[in-house]
Amino acid sequence: MTVLCDVVSLASHTRRCQFIHMPNAYQSLCEVISEIALLTSTEAVLGWDQETYMPSHALDHRARQLSYLTGRAHSLLTSKKTLKLLEQAEKETSENPTHAANIRGLRRDIDRATKLPQKLVEEESQVCAHAKAAWVEARGKSDFDHFAPHLEKVLGIARKKADLFGYDDEPYDALLDLYERGAKTREVAALFTKLRPQLAEISRAAVAKSSKVKPGALKGRYPIEKQQVLNREIAQSLGFDFEAGRIDTTAHPFCTTLGPGDVRLTTRYDEKDFLSSLFGVMHEAGHGLYEQGLPGLDYGLPSGSAASLGIHESQSRLWENHVGRSLIFWKKWFPRAQELFPHLRKVKLDAFMKEMLRSEFSFIRVEADEATYDLHILLRFGIERRLVKGELSVQDVPKVWNEEYRELFGMTPPDDRRGCLQDIHWSMGGLGYFATYTLGNLNAAQLFATAKKQKKIAAALEKCDYAPLLQWLRTNVHSKGAAFLPQEIISQATGSPTDAKWHIKHLRERYVG
Amino acid sequence: MTVLCDVVSLASHTRRCQFIHMPNAYQSLCEVISEIALLTSTEAVLGWDQETYMPSHALDHRARQLSYLTGRAHSLLTSKKTLKLLEQAEKETSENPTHAANIRGLRRDIDRATKLPQKLVEEESQVCAHAKAAWVEARGKSDFDHFAPHLEKVLGIARKKADLFGYDDEPYDALLDLYERGAKTREVAALFTKLRPQLAEISRAAVAKSSKVKPGALKGRYPIEKQQVLNREIAQSLGFDFEAGRIDTTAHPFCTTLGPGDVRLTTRYDEKDFLSSLFGVMHEAGHGLYEQGLPGLDYGLPSGSAASLGIHESQSRLWENHVGRSLIFWKKWFPRAQELFPHLRKVKLDAFMKEMLRSEFSFIRVEADEATYDLHILLRFGIERRLVKGELSVQDVPKVWNEEYRELFGMTPPDDRRGCLQDIHWSMGGLGYFATYTLGNLNAAQLFATAKKQKKIAAALEKCDYAPLLQWLRTNVHSKGAAFLPQEIISQATGSPTDAKWHIKHLRERYVG
Repeated sequence: MTVLCDVVSLASHTRRCQFIHMPNAYQSLCEVISEIALLTSTEAVLGWDQETYMPSHALDHRARQLSYLTGRAHSLLTSKKTLKLLEQAEKETSENPTHAANIRGLRRDIDRATKLPQKLVEEESQVCAHAKAAWVEARGKSDFDHFAPHLEKVLGIARKKADLFGYDDEPYDALLDLYERGAKTREVAALFTKLRPQLAEISRAAVAKSSKVKPGALKGRYPIEKQQVLNREIAQSLGFDFEAGRIDTTAHPFCTTLGPGDVRLTTRYDEKDFLSSLFGVMHEAGHGLYEQGLPGLDYGLPSGSAASLGIHESQSRLWENHVGRSLIFWKKWFPRAQELFPHLRKVKLDAFMKEMLRSEFSFIRVEADEATYDLHILLRFGIERRLVKGELSVQDVPKVWNEEYRELFGMTPPDDRRGCLQDIHWSMGGLGYFATYTLGNLNAAQLFATAKKQKKIAAALEKCDYAPLLQWLRTNVHSKGAAFLPQEIISQATGSPTDAKWHIKHLRERYVG
Repeated sequence: MTVLCDVVSLASHTRRCQFIHMPNAYQSLCEVISEIALLTSTEAVLGWDQETYMPSHALDHRARQLSYLTGRAHSLLTSKKTLKLLEQAEKETSENPTHAANIRGLRRDIDRATKLPQKLVEEESQVCAHAKAAWVEARGKSDFDHFAPHLEKVLGIARKKADLFGYDDEPYDALLDLYERGAKTREVAALFTKLRPQLAEISRAAVAKSSKVKPGALKGRYPIEKQQVLNREIAQSLGFDFEAGRIDTTAHPFCTTLGPGDVRLTTRYDEKDFLSSLFGVMHEAGHGLYEQGLPGLDYGLPSGSAASLGIHESQSRLWENHVGRSLIFWKKWFPRAQELFPHLRKVKLDAFMKEMLRSEFSFIRVEADEATYDLHILLRFGIERRLVKGELSVQDVPKVWNEEYRELFGMTPPDDRRGCLQDIHWSMGGLGYFATYTLGNLNAAQLFATAKKQKKIAAALEKCDYAPLLQWLRTNVHSKGAAFLPQEIISQATGSPTDAKWHIKHLRERYVG
């Protein structure tokens, strides 16, 4: 699975199983999974190096290395031997619920890897390679017609995959499930329908409020070395372990796990804006804290892997937005920023907060602020769902996009480059992915509100001591890996499945109240 | 093969073979070798990352990844299928001399990998692991007795290996051949015997000359960022291709190839001495230029691999010493250094040269200057040879070392830490390695003197234009890979096998004349 802008690996494979009274087939299965994890984690090292330090002429050979490792891992996972072990393990009765969960998770992974005929996998890979190149060109020229036939093919393959994987209500279920285990389209749609009018109202109020704040309060130069000092101090204060991870610089920020004890974050720097790299690091550090908190001994097994993208994103958003954009946080850290960037000394904390929380309608999703971000997702989810159902034709996408955008944001994208051609996802076959961004926001608000109910956590947060909050997340989210479904994790941690009310309450308090 | 302080991989494996009318078995053999090269180059990426950026908690998993890849590569190389292909390829008649050379080279590699029984390989690995730990402790305490029983075991294994590999004159031949293909102990000994009295005389004169130069002319602070700017400009001016390589920082400098088009150098910085990182970079860039000049399409095959350590070291020493320590070089680069390090502006070029070429007798090999370095190697070669022959017992090493040292340097090491315990090589089983350092120095002088006979090269060198020199090395050394024996390459390039006279002439001109 490719994860965009964020976490790179959610693969469900393992390192080793440490239980002594383990049924035989399960143990042998774990050994195979452990070998696969060596291959996939090696791929992760190669991928990280490619994004950070690799010289350009190395590209061809690196592609060969990666394709070799992917091929080996795939053929191990789908071998007759592995399948037989899985079947035997399924027949063994295990009283250990983690073993049972791992067997279920591996069944899912292996089915996924075997249900698609090799021909379709190759076709998808080719279609997406062409679609990506066409998308780059189409976006450059703002020419949707150039991309349309490729999107048509991508859609055709997505529908075939949905049929092969199977679904209950509608084909989009099968696609959504690729990124958010167990999620149902109609449930997500219900959440989003509840969100929509309230988000529209909140975002309008937030934008109106910000329009009264004179811009430019933070203007100045922020040397990169100083930004790095601040980012590192803050990541450390959240609990990110630099003995088990690091931060590097890339064009597109991401977080990737190279093995237990090795979580790499990346960010990019803008000399005119220290908040962009800082919130980038807090976001990625949120992903990284989750990865560092997964059970290392189960590395590669479902019980040692992240639960879903919607859970992953809840962790990044919690630290970035709920912790990082709060007044309490900046009461502590603004003076430190003023030390590092002396021109900030003339700025009052109140003025800083207003600028930092500035809300504006933007055409581009990745530039959107907290108060307007989810509107972009609602738009995409609706269009994807209708495309997959066949209720919307590819050629009508620009028209529908612009109408929907106007309804949500009150303005019309000036061209498709800033409209339906802006995101890479569709060109990579990532239909079903977008929803997880908003699910992450909802889960973040719900988890943070629940954790704060504990007096110890709330009191520590007042002092910018994040250890109790992190401990709560370790216990209630991280340590569970993917041994439970995402909605089981949210329910166990907060008492109910994902509910939009917490996110709405949070946005209202911060941007309207 | 582990290469100390220098080049990491000399493995003889390939990427692909591009010939169309190729006999079948040879082509299939190339495909296997190509797969092995994907594994070993992946190991190289993991190893590079481990030395440069990997966080400490990642160590366990990284060790598992590396051991898995090593195991896969070894079992592919020694599989029955590979052996059968090799036998078939040997029977095919090829008119292509490169194919024939590759088949001979692969036979050598595969024999190497299969001649040692698995039990001995495991025993060596265990003995060396303990020997290395014991060596670290013994050196710390300057206690040879603590290391002696381990050296005894290392020696026993080296003798067993020599017996299994076979040799003509004496067992040391088989060990030497591991690092310098085709080299004979008696030939190397003859070279060294010729060198010894002349080196002793030159080094004494050089040290006497330097003792008249007042030290401290270059005292000052050299910011690391500025050193990096200078190092990069100089490496680029030599022809090192930064699109196909890079420089990073490590505790111990090295050069490693991660694939065709991907050569990574490392160096370390001393804020009080810019020359140490600069000459480190020029040395590693010499290795790197060689690797960048190997035939990329034959990557992994003998014809795409370095010829030997003695050839590799000739490239690093040529650029470091013959180019980098010359007056012509500094006529161009000293003004640039003065720009970057303003306190050097008060230093005259003549005074700089005297300080830069300062010669002193040191107890420690790795701190030795150009004029005294080879004496350290002669000492070690003699002791190793007698140890392997059984003419010298382990317990007598410190006594003999100190006597020999006094004879060569006119002083006695104050303790074994600064004597026979200083080098890591023996603890890693690297008996036979040391000679290649001096062979490299001799080859460097001989190649450089030959190249300079061409007027075009000499004229360009006067202008610090290194393109013609590099082109000559590309044609006469780099492009040949290991398709010829080291001594064949030297003879073809210079008209005679390695001869000490060029190195002696060079040292005499620079340090005595």
